[in-house]
Amino acid sequence: MREDKGILALNAFDPSRVSTMDAGLRDAVQRRLRSFGSASVLFYQEPIRMERADGVWMFDTEGRRYLDLYNNVPSVGHSHPRVVEAIRRQVGLLNTHTRYLSDVVDTYAERLLATFPPDIDQLVLTCTGSEANDLALRVAKLATGRTGFIVTETAYHGNTAAVTDVSPSSRPGQPLPPHVRTVPAPDALRAAGGDLGKSFATNVGRAIAELEQSGVGFAGLLVDTIFSSDGVYADPPGFLAPAVQLVHEKRGLFIADEVQPGFGRTGAALWGFARHGVVPDIVTMGKPMGNGFPMGGVATRTTLLDRFAAETKYFNTFGGNPVAAAAGLAVLDVIADEGLINNAQEIGGHLMNGLREIGNRHIQIGDVRGSGLFIGLELVRDRDTKAPAPDIANEVINRLRYRGILIGAAGPFGNTLKIRPPLCFTKDNADMFVAACDEVLREVCPA
Amino acid sequence: MREDKGILALNAFDPSRVSTMDAGLRDAVQRRLRSFGSASVLFYQEPIRMERADGVWMFDTEGRRYLDLYNNVPSVGHSHPRVVEAIRRQVGLLNTHTRYLSDVVDTYAERLLATFPPDIDQLVLTCTGSEANDLALRVAKLATGRTGFIVTETAYHGNTAAVTDVSPSSRPGQPLPPHVRTVPAPDALRAAGGDLGKSFATNVGRAIAELEQSGVGFAGLLVDTIFSSDGVYADPPGFLAPAVQLVHEKRGLFIADEVQPGFGRTGAALWGFARHGVVPDIVTMGKPMGNGFPMGGVATRTTLLDRFAAETKYFNTFGGNPVAAAAGLAVLDVIADEGLINNAQEIGGHLMNGLREIGNRHIQIGDVRGSGLFIGLELVRDRDTKAPAPDIANEVINRLRYRGILIGAAGPFGNTLKIRPPLCFTKDNADMFVAACDEVLREVCPA
Repeated sequence: MREDKGILALNAFDPSRVSTMDAGLRDAVQRRLRSFGSASVLFYQEPIRMERADGVWMFDTEGRRYLDLYNNVPSVGHSHPRVVEAIRRQVGLLNTHTRYLSDVVDTYAERLLATFPPDIDQLVLTCTGSEANDLALRVAKLATGRTGFIVTETAYHGNTAAVTDVSPSSRPGQPLPPHVRTVPAPDALRAAGGDLGKSFATNVGRAIAELEQSGVGFAGLLVDTIFSSDGVYADPPGFLAPAVQLVHEKRGLFIADEVQPGFGRTGAALWGFARHGVVPDIVTMGKPMGNGFPMGGVATRTTLLDRFAAETKYFNTFGGNPVAAAAGLAVLDVIADEGLINNAQEIGGHLMNGLREIGNRHIQIGDVRGSGLFIGLELVRDRDTKAPAPDIANEVINRLRYRGILIGAAGPFGNTLKIRPPLCFTKDNADMFVAACDEVLREVCPA
Repeated sequence: MREDKGILALNAFDPSRVSTMDAGLRDAVQRRLRSFGSASVLFYQEPIRMERADGVWMFDTEGRRYLDLYNNVPSVGHSHPRVVEAIRRQVGLLNTHTRYLSDVVDTYAERLLATFPPDIDQLVLTCTGSEANDLALRVAKLATGRTGFIVTETAYHGNTAAVTDVSPSSRPGQPLPPHVRTVPAPDALRAAGGDLGKSFATNVGRAIAELEQSGVGFAGLLVDTIFSSDGVYADPPGFLAPAVQLVHEKRGLFIADEVQPGFGRTGAALWGFARHGVVPDIVTMGKPMGNGFPMGGVATRTTLLDRFAAETKYFNTFGGNPVAAAAGLAVLDVIADEGLINNAQEIGGHLMNGLREIGNRHIQIGDVRGSGLFIGLELVRDRDTKAPAPDIANEVINRLRYRGILIGAAGPFGNTLKIRPPLCFTKDNADMFVAACDEVLREVCPA
């Protein structure tokens, strides 16, 4: 069923195409491959030489402009002046670790913790979402005394050894490690009907039973609360609640991976889990946290952190350094002062309406779903069979690139366009994208 | 034999002492503990509220000045204007990932790779040394098809789950995982005599045999080439060669952890392994790489990277972003233009001479060792018994703090002062430190 490519390969550049490029680009690509080799991941059949970026726009070395609907790291806008200024100021003042006291670090921690339900009262700052999820798994293991985790079938949670074990999309075609079980993503489009939350919880319950029967034991359920790499699943709000309740009944922990949905992207709240009315035991953060400055974090309850700290020592050299804290604080300020959560909600709604409207003309638009400015547009052969159309998705992505629009794909089949522009996206930006999608689909799939 | 504290606890602040502090500091410490709880690691019996730093100096919120001999991250000097300027420029221009082409990233990769032996020809950029070591272990496992690693008894290689498994100093009192074996650090002070390189290799050989007999199989030897957390062992140069030869005979890989010794600190070359005349299969980097900007990396041979990439997908969102590359490039420029490798060699030698000279007056100075500006000063009861004196080390560290000098400790007993100032350290700075050490030792250990 599943494509044997994994999500990281979607829209990846194919090195065998080097010979078809113009000389300048060919040299640039070969230069990249010389140093980074088989581990390099370039986007597009013709990779882009990027030079600068501002707000929702990116510019290549030839001055061509791209509307960015792909990058969820520069979430408050590329090169946002307030974040840039915060980094510039702090990097010339002090850039050291958390073994000294520093006001900006404590101010940031307090501001960030205030955004969580009261139970989530302590923080560990890391440098990446991968480090955050790696640490979350360790906290959950030490707190429960068990090692089994449940994730979705096309989950991606990061790149460390331990996190790759719980990221099936990074290990296509390989058997799951014995301490990992998967459940299908909550795919409303293909659901047999009935209550999505109940069926998701039923699957989680089955996986818990398997972990218990195998002797591994159940430590926790780890999900990205917008199911990004599974193909973007947001609705109906609250569908996570029955699974989380079951997890707690079975003495496991619920880890909300907010690396992608977090910091306002879903438009409903700062955190993706809030839409589901659940309170996680552990929350992990990353990508948009510093608008590009490398930072991540784990927020959890004091009791869980205490049990972890009693067993092992943890220190993160760069984690929570004053520059990261300054960047993180600026991001929180900008989200609040520019009303970006509301903007994500409003523009996201407008964008979904526009995409659904052109869906009337294109039977290949199988589904438009999401929340705020995290939207999935699923491309299919037609709406009756719902057969995934990754070839159309790939063609659309590459044609949009030549029209100056950046976008990616997700899901087990790579047929869902992943739409997640900076949160300062405007109605005009949205209209421009919808019109371009309409035209490109007309080109790719003539009636 | 081993203290049950682990290296991270050396000189850590003890929360039970909060009540003895003045109100301002007490509030600041309690504020830190409220947000970061039991996972926070503060230095000193009275933690320092740090505000700014410049070159070899750090300044607290009350304007007190500290000569920094502890921090090996701001290696070319705190707030170095060229690194600060490089970050300030690039962060306002473009701060994105390596899925687009970017000249500064490729320039940096080429400059960095040119510093390695020709076999080490490809690079993966990460955000931290921990991520680098985590990836190195994965590369070694996939390339050898085996999972067993050998490290030193008090090794510290980072903070992910997989790297903590090979960091005995982070897991004090806990049994080693079945895939990890330790060897004693190459401690010349306590060696029975004979050839240190041969005896180190003999121990490695024994550990390889154990891994093979247990069925785990031998994947690699991972060492910090200056043995920082073991207590700083540098001499005689070349002592690593017999072990590395044996590792290769046994079809294992040699991973040189250059997170601490790398980027010129040892004074002999840019990399610590160079002093030993060995060529690693994998090199890992971190801490000083961006002078505080979070970055790390793995350099290895194309063949090893290819075998890794064939098995699994790897992408690091912030790794090798243009801001990191700009910072890294500035660091390499400053090291070259300011002659920092030579300076480390020269000032390091001067500093070691000075410390040995005061050793004539203090029987507690059991050993002064190291290379360049990575120096260990081992404190003992007396030179005959060589009995470790961690209490003296702790007292010296805290008294130096009140004299405006920052320093730490390392080693299994916490009795070795770890001296690693910024590489722009001067003769005057060194003399100031030696004089302060002399006085403090006189206070702590009156004749």
